[in-house]
Amino acid sequence: MDKLIAQLGFLLELDKLKAILRRTRPVGLDRYENTAEHSWHVALMAMLLAEHAEPPVAVERVVKMLLLHDIVEIDADDTFLYDEAAAAGKADKEVAAAERLFGMLPPEQAREFHALWREYEERATADGRFAYACDRLLPMLQNLANEGASWQENSVRFEQVIRKNLPINDAAPALWQYVLPKLEAARDKGWLG
Amino acid sequence: MDKLIAQLGFLLELDKLKAILRRTRPVGLDRYENTAEHSWHVALMAMLLAEHAEPPVAVERVVKMLLLHDIVEIDADDTFLYDEAAAAGKADKEVAAAERLFGMLPPEQAREFHALWREYEERATADGRFAYACDRLLPMLQNLANEGASWQENSVRFEQVIRKNLPINDAAPALWQYVLPKLEAARDKGWLG
Ligand SMILES: [Ca+2]
Repeated sequence: MDKLIAQLGFLLELDKLKAILRRTRPVGLDRYENTAEHSWHVALMAMLLAEHAEPPVAVERVVKMLLLHDIVEIDADDTFLYDEAAAAGKADKEVAAAERLFGMLPPEQAREFHALWREYEERATADGRFAYACDRLLPMLQNLANEGASWQENSVRFEQVIRKNLPINDAAPALWQYVLPKLEAARDKGWLG
Repeated sequence: MDKLIAQLGFLLELDKLKAILRRTRPVGLDRYENTAEHSWHVALMAMLLAEHAEPPVAVERVVKMLLLHDIVEIDADDTFLYDEAAAAGKADKEVAAAERLFGMLPPEQAREFHALWREYEERATADGRFAYACDRLLPMLQNLANEGASWQENSVRFEQVIRKNLPINDAAPALWQYVLPKLEAARDKGWLG
């Protein structure tokens, strides 16, 4: 019973992720998306696109990783990918957030979930790299469908987009080959600085 | 390439689920939650509470089922569990929505995802029943943490809550045993009619 109470405490704490806003707009909606709905979208994306992973991945592990990957933002908030200044203190804040949040769980589950989160962060495994690739690709696809709205609002440059998202090519080259010409076209249309 | 284009078309269509509102409020937030963020929450919940399933379940399948279970609301909208009038036309609308949405996918994946959705709807397997149990339990826990906000706003009665949520007991009796006394206490406090 104590175990269940700890699990349910963690479960309700997760509601706070629904208040964390990102810089990306869902296609067709006039608002920013929050990290909870983003986490659903990217987990389903991994399930949808797993066949494009090279090397192959264990999709169930990638899905779990993506469900958990951003919960540290409950304490550490979202950091915009292209905000280099904000990126400085990010890692320490997120490590502390992971300690607190996973620490709410029964010990065995705390270890399992914390390890999945670290595997995502470290990108040292094929599963971790593919999870990261999905997380990078999705907001680019949303931006491409939104005439680059978030790029334009935040003065994002083409070179930044290439540099930050090139890791997609290490985990799913077919996805990178698909998106690269679209990014070049977006630059040519003036959606990227 | 055609296959990838179909998959990405489906992926971006999913953004529409972020605009579908439910009647439940995230704990501490003064707004209704949308179905996309709910789907993230309940998929993670299954991962968290799988050990309480009786009989045991294949948690990876349950998680996938829950990521997909509500996407039909893109066309069919959310139906409030306790709105018996609205429930009448729900099944037909959802079947048509599933045809359209899963029909956007490459054929093999369309079949796989559509079958997972049907398994959730039919609740004829342990995995489907546990997925359903999570989906029933989560809004009750949110309501209990919110002094019954959504129950009070919608004049929900104790007997309705028991009748609609009793299937939790078939898939995870420990979870039902946990929540039943809390529901009785909520009734005694006047949070339920
Ligand atoms: Ca649901």
